This record gives sequence, structure tokens and C-alpha cells, in this order.
Amino acid sequence: MTTRREVNIGLLSSVVAAAATPAFAQKPQAIDLPSPAMIGGKSLMQSLKDRQSIRAYSNQTLSKEILSDLLWAAWGVNRPQSDGRTAPHWRNVYALDIYLAMADGVWRYEPRSHKIIFHLDGDLRAQTTNGQPFVATAPLNLVYAFDMSKLTGANETEAIAAAAACVAMVGENVYLYCASASLATVFRQSVPGAKLAQTLKLPPSQIIQFAQTVGYPQS
Amino acid sequence: MTTRREVNIGLLSSVVAAAATPAFAQKPQAIDLPSPAMIGGKSLMQSLKDRQSIRAYSNQTLSKEILSDLLWAAWGVNRPQSDGRTAPHWRNVYALDIYLAMADGVWRYEPRSHKIIFHLDGDLRAQTTNGQPFVATAPLNLVYAFDMSKLTGANETEAIAAAAACVAMVGENVYLYCASASLATVFRQSVPGAKLAQTLKLPPSQIIQFAQTVGYPQS
Repeated sequence: MTTRREVNIGLLSSVVAAAATPAFAQKPQAIDLPSPAMIGGKSLMQSLKDRQSIRAYSNQTLSKEILSDLLWAAWGVNRPQSDGRTAPHWRNVYALDIYLAMADGVWRYEPRSHKIIFHLDGDLRAQTTNGQPFVATAPLNLVYAFDMSKLTGANETEAIAAAAACVAMVGENVYLYCASASLATVFRQSVPGAKLAQTLKLPPSQIIQFAQTVGYPQS
Repeated sequence: MTTRREVNIGLLSSVVAAAATPAFAQKPQAIDLPSPAMIGGKSLMQSLKDRQSIRAYSNQTLSKEILSDLLWAAWGVNRPQSDGRTAPHWRNVYALDIYLAMADGVWRYEPRSHKIIFHLDGDLRAQTTNGQPFVATAPLNLVYAFDMSKLTGANETEAIAAAAACVAMVGENVYLYCASASLATVFRQSVPGAKLAQTLKLPPSQIIQFAQTVGYPQS
């Protein structure tokens, strides 16, 4: 499925290709992820047995195949006919965006097309924490942005809880995928949410309550 | 591991046994669950593929073996040496109690001993919803009670979000276990939290934000 944003990016890419290769053309605007590997991996029960929080990472990067499996497990489309996802969402409202802060910039996961879309230049990993040092060097920090304006009909407490619950279910999927693939992860509430949302140029309705570090465990 | 509550129940049981079999002695005070089945079941990725919310249930009851696997998957001890659990918890604080509203009364899951402890007489399943009719007849409704007094150092918004996140991660484990075991489930925010907490005789510090129905899908 092609979103308006991707169409815009497509148009932009054509213009860029016709022009004299400005700096931002060096970065691909979107990366197609391979199909997630549905065969192999641990059983659910073994993944639950191996689930844990890890706070010491090697700086080894994650392959495109690992990114694909991880993001699909997190919040991928598991029932294409109904646009169903691997984690539930409040009253069928899609309000979550997952940003990927990596060494080469910030990307956004687009579940319908299973792509990552380039969002922002620069290594912002250290800016996704209130000071935990492992965050800056682990290869990936997922930043969960939730559009509160979409939770119509909920009072403020219900909306905060609904947003946290939606994000946490995705976070638990990430935990279990990492357990299954022998990766390390930790879900983090200690994030500079308001400042980070500004840095990521998010609209005011999108809030950041949580982030999650992913990588290989330090050996 | 024996908690003070279980010791009290044990003492009570002895007294009961010596007395003239009062009504409440007909109900066992605690049920040992069998060890969870760690072999078999679907892979994690297949469980993620099959995850969905279902709102139509048969009234077939769940066996003790299914209850065991379900509760261990939800919030069981997966690393006994550190009392680690299948879902993470905020700053190593255990603030969650899972109650089971079933036709024969309300029980509480005790992860350390992997038992369910009798809590309250009566079929309270219908009281765990704001009006969704399938809730009253599905065999099990998990009620998530969270002790907010244990979240010291968090402001109110952070505490609401932390509580919701802890519960939702357990809820996602339940979703995936149900997908793996071909059971039906739905995580529900529409609960009469304050009234239900009172009915369950919880202390004022324990709040209920969510419940989750579990059973067999209606065929």
C-alpha cells in the first residue's frame, strides 16, 4: 500500500535524480525490507523462558534481515485483509509510529509496505535517553511516538494508559523476538519525551513515553 | 516459595480440617498448578502471525494444564534465581496481582509457587466489564490489579503509564499464548475499575485499569 508520504518521497526522488545529486540524495529515501522469516526460530514458550532485559551491548550492527523480522514481530501486518497487526490497538485506531534511531540517522517503520522511511539525518541515539550510557552505542533505539489526538472519547488518564498499553504490547513483542533471535533489548521509560519529540520534528499531538534499545549482547 | 498469605491459608486449612466442615472448606484454598509445558506449541513467529482479538467464546472450561501454561506465559517465573518473570516490571518492583474471575469464584495467581489461591466466592465474571455480553460466559476473565503505592518516585502521569505498560506486556504474553494454543482472548480497557476493586476487596492503593477475557473460540 502506498501512502501519501511515500508518494511524496517518490516524487522527491525523481526530482533529485534529475538534479545535480545534492547531499541528501546520498541517503536512500526508503528501504524495502525483505519478507520476514516465518520458518525457524524458537518456540513461543522457549522465547518466554529466555525473555530478559539486557543493558550491555556490543556495537555490532543489525542486518536488514534482522531488522525486517524485528519490526514485523513488533508491529507488522499479520492479517493483510484487515490490516491486522501483531499487537492490538485501541478501538481499531492506528496511532503509533515507530522511529528507529541508528548511527546513520532516524528512520520510520511503515508496516503496510514493510519499509523503513528516512526521516532525519544525524546520530540521535544518545538523545533517546536521560543518561543511560549503553543507549548511545547500541546499534538501534526504537522510539515509540503515539498520536494522542486519535484517542477521541477517552479521558486523560484513560488516554495515557491506552497509549502506554499499545506501545508496551509492541515492546513485549520486541522482547520475545530478541529472546528468540539471541539479541539483547531493554524497554525504557526514562526518556526525554518532550525534547525528543521536538528534535524528531513531530507534531504536538504525538508524544513519546517509551523507547527500547536493541542490539547484540556484549560478549 | 511460601508467602505469608499462604502460611495463613495453611493455618486456616488446618483449623478448618479440625472443625465440622464449614461451607468454605468445600473449596480448596489453593490449587497447585502442574509444571508449564515447555515442549511443543507454535513458534514465536507463527504465534505472532496468529495473534488476534476474539469476542465470541464457547463456554467450554479451561483445564488445569491450560491454566498453568497460560499463567506461566503471562507472568510466570522464567529465571528462578533472580525471580525474573516472562514480562518486565518497572524498576524491579513487583506491583501486579492477577485475579482470575471464573464461574466458581475469584482466584489469585501466585507466580513464585505457581499456584492459584482462592480469593472470593461467587461468579463475578459479568462484573469485570462495562457491558460486553461475551465476558459473562467465557470461562475466564483475568483482572489486572496494580499497586500504585509501589511506584515511588514517579509522577502521576508516569505512574499511570508505567502501570499500564506492565499490565499490557503481560496481556501481550496472554495474546501470544492463546494464539499458540488456539484459544481466544481479548484485552479490555472498558472495565468498571473502581467498583470492581471494591468488590474484590482490594486495598485502595491497588487499581484496575484492564481485564482480559480468555476461552475457546465459538465454533
